[in-house]
Formats: sequence, structure tokens, C-alpha cells
Amino acid sequence: MRTRVGIVGAGPAGLLLSLLLAEHGIDSVIVETRSRAAIEETIRAGVLEHGTVETLRQYGVGDRALAEGARHDGIELRFGGQGHRIDFANLVGRSVWLYPQHEVLKDLIAARLAAGADIRFECGDVALRDVTSDRPVIAFTEADGTAVELECDVVAGCDGSAGISRHTIPDAARTDYFRTYPFGWFGVLVEAPPSAPELIYAHSERGFALVSTRTPTVQRLYFQCDPDEDAAAWSDDRIWAELQARVAGDGFSLAEGPIFQRGVIPMRSYVCEPMRYGRLFLAGDAAHTVPPTGAKGLNLAVADVLVLARALDSYYATGSTALLDSYSDVASRRVWRAQHFSWWMTSMLHTDPAGSAFDVRRQLGELESVTGSTAGSTYLAEAYTGWPVEF
Amino acid sequence: MRTRVGIVGAGPAGLLLSLLLAEHGIDSVIVETRSRAAIEETIRAGVLEHGTVETLRQYGVGDRALAEGARHDGIELRFGGQGHRIDFANLVGRSVWLYPQHEVLKDLIAARLAAGADIRFECGDVALRDVTSDRPVIAFTEADGTAVELECDVVAGCDGSAGISRHTIPDAARTDYFRTYPFGWFGVLVEAPPSAPELIYAHSERGFALVSTRTPTVQRLYFQCDPDEDAAAWSDDRIWAELQARVAGDGFSLAEGPIFQRGVIPMRSYVCEPMRYGRLFLAGDAAHTVPPTGAKGLNLAVADVLVLARALDSYYATGSTALLDSYSDVASRRVWRAQHFSWWMTSMLHTDPAGSAFDVRRQLGELESVTGSTAGSTYLAEAYTGWPVEF
Repeated sequence: MRTRVGIVGAGPAGLLLSLLLAEHGIDSVIVETRSRAAIEETIRAGVLEHGTVETLRQYGVGDRALAEGARHDGIELRFGGQGHRIDFANLVGRSVWLYPQHEVLKDLIAARLAAGADIRFECGDVALRDVTSDRPVIAFTEADGTAVELECDVVAGCDGSAGISRHTIPDAARTDYFRTYPFGWFGVLVEAPPSAPELIYAHSERGFALVSTRTPTVQRLYFQCDPDEDAAAWSDDRIWAELQARVAGDGFSLAEGPIFQRGVIPMRSYVCEPMRYGRLFLAGDAAHTVPPTGAKGLNLAVADVLVLARALDSYYATGSTALLDSYSDVASRRVWRAQHFSWWMTSMLHTDPAGSAFDVRRQLGELESVTGSTAGSTYLAEAYTGWPVEF
Repeated sequence: MRTRVGIVGAGPAGLLLSLLLAEHGIDSVIVETRSRAAIEETIRAGVLEHGTVETLRQYGVGDRALAEGARHDGIELRFGGQGHRIDFANLVGRSVWLYPQHEVLKDLIAARLAAGADIRFECGDVALRDVTSDRPVIAFTEADGTAVELECDVVAGCDGSAGISRHTIPDAARTDYFRTYPFGWFGVLVEAPPSAPELIYAHSERGFALVSTRTPTVQRLYFQCDPDEDAAAWSDDRIWAELQARVAGDGFSLAEGPIFQRGVIPMRSYVCEPMRYGRLFLAGDAAHTVPPTGAKGLNLAVADVLVLARALDSYYATGSTALLDSYSDVASRRVWRAQHFSWWMTSMLHTDPAGSAFDVRRQLGELESVTGSTAGSTYLAEAYTGWPVEF
């Protein structure tokens, strides 16, 4: 079995890549270990950058995001007991959309299958071979147990942070960059109306909190905690008291309701460089992980894929490998900027367990400067709503 | 002996305060432990914010700064072997002046003495008494040994980080905020022509370096080092090799010459709050220390004094203590913003000895974002050239 581009993983990166390649008349096959239902039912939050929504719309998979997603024209930075709005629309003429990642995946899968794309779900024993040769192979077994060897021109490793693609690159040929933050996020899903029209990023001496909304009746709330915190040990009352304390001030309080899901998520950063090894190209979480503070994960995957699709189009159209050769440098430049932005939002808003009262006051000084300066607010808004993709 | 405002310390804060008070017809006496010569001959670098130069000019002590100081319309951020100019004049319409702090002091002392100001140099045994009463006292002995009790309405503690004013506030009545950075600056004075027209702040994997100029024939160069580094143990060749390695790239190199002074300076932050205790008001380094990366020390002293002088003028003109009561909050707000800016410049450009390769790449991502964004560059330029003073 042969295809031009073998894609490992039917996540945002793999599905979007397959779509963009098809637009350029380049055939691909997606090999995925999970079932379609598992992919579509793994609920994940999503903040889509302006450019991400534009890309989805441009390629015919943005209708539902635009109709059912919520456009947010700003966020609130809350500190010293007061809210300070960062007005994206006014500062940079861009917005973000709240639209869950699994809904993006539903839209992409439906569109790809409707267009006759070859997506193999529930594959087992996926392995990459000969990726430094001209004929790399994706070996796997189908759901029915049939062993398949998929010969490709190029393999796109889009199988996320737990996938096999990254590990196909020998240790000696890649550098792993890690950072683990000394805290986690205690997240809860709550049956309640929204407490505010936009996301609230709250700084307090007790630590960070994030007020987010899922639907008109379901809210997603987070607060900074110890990374080893036992979520089950917290009573609902204690959770509400902690959340309310972190956003208190100026008469504001959260609308409370039944907590029906809870959990602690770690805060980690990871980058693999280069993002290319022979004819294997990594995209999305397979190459990098960001902490959720900057809401950049899905958007970085989209940016990677735009760069990679253009490089592949150029390769097939002209035979030149120039854009494929520069892919890793071009994509990782944005990755590092996004890693910085995620670190910045994190370090500006979270309490460092090893920090001092000096650091808390310094953070307040920074928040005053950022919110008090049009330039500072614009700099944040540019990053949050997404920089233009560079090729 | 009586005066309205007793000022401890003939540094930038004390001298400027005395000048501004005289403009408002408020008499003061300055009590200083050092000799005039010692003050004028302690060589210290100076980067004057736009507003600091304006203040000096407005009060008739800016002629020499404007004539002999060097106006700098930008700085260079150097990373990845390339220079990136932050164009202050273009971005924010403001500049900074390189004019050494001891020259500012000479100008202020000359102006104050010419106007008949009462400055007592070489005083001993300076102590503050009864600062929570209506009649605080500065007790000291004159150079000739005469014991003096100076009764005041108000005492201004302008005696720097090693002065006695701060310690007059009981521990229970003040909070000390400290931060010690895990590195120092190895500084050298060099006989050589300037290597560049503007200051260069250089990031490299070997650590930070700063290229500054004192005169057309004397340059001031720094590089990040261990805070306990023994400057005497370095050969000139080794110093030059380290400096050149940190700024290398793009054909740039430093003009070398004889090194005639060297030393290691620590990097520390300190804030004392409140900046007021009874009728004692702290200003300048007596209340706060910043690391030199942001060049904010002298400028913060000037901003403190502008706020304090206006408060004292209001008090004597109207009898209202409202502005004196808000002095600490108003002044410390700027202090914390400046502490953040100094920390930001430091953490963006220095290598953290406890950091990882991830942090170095993240810093490069930040430097790309700041220099690549007009908003980011403007945000930095606003802070570097100085925010407007808020009252």
C-alpha cells in the first residue's frame, strides 16, 4: 500500500494536514490508534486564535465554530481585587473563539470522511521504519488484525505527546527541552450560569484562578494547586471558598452550582528539536507541549500544519526541498515564542511556591504596567489572539 | 536649631528635594556624613530618564547634563549573534541621557550652595528622634565636633541603602522586601574608543553582557558572573575573551584597550514599605534598591522627590496632610513597576545558573517577540525612558 504523505494521528494536526494536502491534490492516509468515538468524545477545552478560525473557515470546516463557538473580544486580568480588561478587538482588531477542541475534531473528521479521505481508526502496533530513506514506511495492524505496510514519500508525525513518532528520532539526533512548573491546576466543571462574559485570569496572594465558560449552563473553573494535590480530598465547600477567595473584590463573586467533575492537571512545557528527521516531520503536540495558561496548544498545531502543508505543496509542485528543509526552523521559531508567552502568562499570574512576598508585589507591579499601558496590553493581545503565521 | 524639612543625606534625593522645596519657599537643612569631595568624586554611572532630564532642566540644574551628557535615542538588544535596535525616539518620542550620577550631584551641590542652602557635610553620629511626634529631631555632630539638635516639622530620609533613616522605622512598623539575584556583574573600565553608538544589552548562552560608554576614550563594560567571583583572578586576556564571546556575531567585536579598573557588583532588589513613618518620609535608595539592569536607581529617587515635594508644598500651602498621607502608596506604586522592569530586563537577558537549555531558548523566543513587535518594543521603551510621574 502506498500514499504520498502518511500521517500518524487523527488529532487536530493530522486531520488538518490531510485536509490541506487534499486541497493541493496531494493524497494521504491517516493512521490512528483510537476509535472515532473516542476521539470525538474526549472532551477538551479550546480557545481558537483568530487565525485558527480563519484557517478553518477558509478550508470549509469553520461553519460550526463560527455559529456555535463564542467569540471573545477580550479577557479580564484580575488583580488587587479589581478587574482590568484587555480589549483584543480594540487593541489588535482580532478576537478568539471558545470552541472545544473535540468539536473541531468532529468537524474535521466529518469533512474528511465526506471527501473520501482514508482514515484508519483503531490501528495497533503502529511503527515507523526507514524514515531516513526515500521510502519511509508506517507499519500497523488494522482493527481487524490485518498487518499493513504503508509506503510513503513523507511521514507526518501528528500523534501527540504520547505518540510514537517523536521517539522514532534517535536520542542522538534530537534535543528534548523540558520544563515542569511547580504547581498544577485544580479544574472543576460546574452546573451554573457564566459568572462573567469573558475569561478571567486572576492573580491573588493565594495563587492563580481561571474563570472560563463552556456553555450557558456549564462553567469551567480552575485554581492553582500543588501538582500532587488530591482532588478527591476537597469538599465542594472548600473548593468554592478557595475559588471565591481568589477572585474576590469589587463586589464580584462566582455563580455557584453543583460540581460534577474535578481533577488536577500538571503544568509542563516540552519542545523536541529538530521537528524533522529524514522524511519524518513532527507537527503539533508530537513536537511540543505548552502549559494551558496561554491557550496555545491547538493553535500551535494549526500553525505547524500550515507551514508543513505549504512545504509539501512546494515539494510536489517544484521538486524543491527548500521549504521542507526550513520547516523545523520556521515552525520551532513560533513554538519558542509561544513557549515564552505561556511561561509569561503563567509566571505573571501564579504564585511561585519558592517565591517571596517580593515576587508577589513585583507581579502586581507588572500587572499594573501591562494593563496601564496600551503598548503592554497590545503586546499581550497580539500573542493571545495569535501572531500571523510566518512561512 | 530649627528648620521646616530636615533632610538626611546629600545624594540625588536629598539635594533635589532641598532644591524643589526652596522653589516653593520651604526652608530645609541637609545633614550629610560624607565630605563634599567624597560625594563628588565617587564615580557612578548614570542613565537619566527623559523626565529626569526635564526635571533638572526645569529647575535650572540641567544645563551641563544637556550639554555634556550624551542623548541616546535607543538601545541595542543583542541575541543570536545579531543586534536589534529599540528605537526610543521613534517608538515613544523620548530619549535617555548618559550623564554620570556624580556629575548630577556636582550640579545640584553647586546650585544649592550658590542659592545659600544649608548643607552640613561631614556630620557624625546622625540619629533621628521623635519622628512620630510633631517635632522630629535630627541629632548629629558637626565636622568640628559641635553637637546639634535640628528640630523639624518633617524629616526626609534620603541617606541611601546604608543610611540610618530606614532603620529608624521599627521592625514591626515596616516590611522589608528582598530579592538577591544568583549572579553579579563583572565590571571593567577600559581605555578605548566606543564600540557602538548606543548601549548594547547582550544575551548569550554564556550569560549577559552590557556595553556602555563613559567618554569618547573610556568605556564601561560588564558581564554576568558568579556573585562571589574574584575579579583579581582574571587576566586581561581572559576578560576580553569572555566579553568578545558574549557579543560575537554578525562581524561585531569590541574595541579593546587597557583595563584600568575592575570589580564585581551584586544584583539585589529591596523595597521598604511603607515609605513613611510618622513624620519621617523615605525617598530614593533609603527606601529601595534596584539591580542596575534597568538603570532605574537615580530616576526612582527623582520620582520619589517630585511626589514628596508636591505633598510638602500642599501641606504648607493648605495645611492638608492628604498628599503626605498618600505619599507612600503613590511612590511605591512606581517603585514596584520599576522593580518589575528591572527584574524583567534581568531575567530576559541573564542566564539563570539554576536554569536549563529550555530557559535559554524561551528567552530567545521572548527577545524575538519583543523586538519583532512594535507594541513589545514600545512597552520596553516606555519603561526604559521612564513613565510619567503620577501624583
